[in-house]
Amino acid sequence: MSTTDRSLRFIGVVRSPLRSRHDAPRQGDEGGPAAWLEIDEPYAAALQGLAVGDAILVLTWLHQADRDVLDVHPRGDRNRALTGVFATRSPDRPNPIGLHQVTVLGIGAGSRLEVHPLEAIDGTPIIDIKPVLPRTAER
Amino acid sequence: MSTTDRSLRFIGVVRSPLRSRHDAPRQGDEGGPAAWLEIDEPYAAALQGLAVGDAILVLTWLHQADRDVLDVHPRGDRNRALTGVFATRSPDRPNPIGLHQVTVLGIGAGSRLEVHPLEAIDGTPIIDIKPVLPRTAER
Repeated sequence: MSTTDRSLRFIGVVRSPLRSRHDAPRQGDEGGPAAWLEIDEPYAAALQGLAVGDAILVLTWLHQADRDVLDVHPRGDRNRALTGVFATRSPDRPNPIGLHQVTVLGIGAGSRLEVHPLEAIDGTPIIDIKPVLPRTAER
Repeated sequence: MSTTDRSLRFIGVVRSPLRSRHDAPRQGDEGGPAAWLEIDEPYAAALQGLAVGDAILVLTWLHQADRDVLDVHPRGDRNRALTGVFATRSPDRPNPIGLHQVTVLGIGAGSRLEVHPLEAIDGTPIIDIKPVLPRTAER
């Protein structure tokens, strides 16, 4: 693999009652609902070892974001000073990667995981899943 | 932007005394050194608001990873059962995105940030920087 290989592989998709950015809370812990992660069959083997109750990080590709935005008013509040997007969690940024900490509620047939809470909208591509790391001494 | 736009923009590069995967610890808190994040000039405005002492998440593109690996022995220990990569922090995974929590030690001229600890090797492309979120009540 060379550094010129910079194309993401979409490994699955979010299925959620949230249908638009307008409906979505800014962070999962601000009222994000339960949602399903539908993982594509070629990647099913990579889920082996995940269990109900696990805390995981879901990385998504926020496909409706504006990649040319470099600064924003934090949380859309015009009373707050313009701030560089790398100092905020704005979805609008050069690489609109969403990072969501969720708990696995259930594991369904066909490589589906139910998770909670998730603020990503229905149809958002999934690009990675990682375990939340325990403290060093527990690894 | 459409969902067909899935090409990452490299926003900068890691400058580190670590020269190879063999030298690197598995996680930053297992002895990762201080390193510099050299952010490319077109993205300098996106750093505005970051300060010395901030806890940030650095997302990198682990350009030496094998993207076709779906399961591994955790931490390379063959006494541990093969586990799906989404249940591990293996760099080998469909989208080899490194996620590193570090502290900003210094801010240099030319859009450079010194951070600690970082286990990514010299030359690793940087794809995003996010603040570590405070508790909901503090936002």
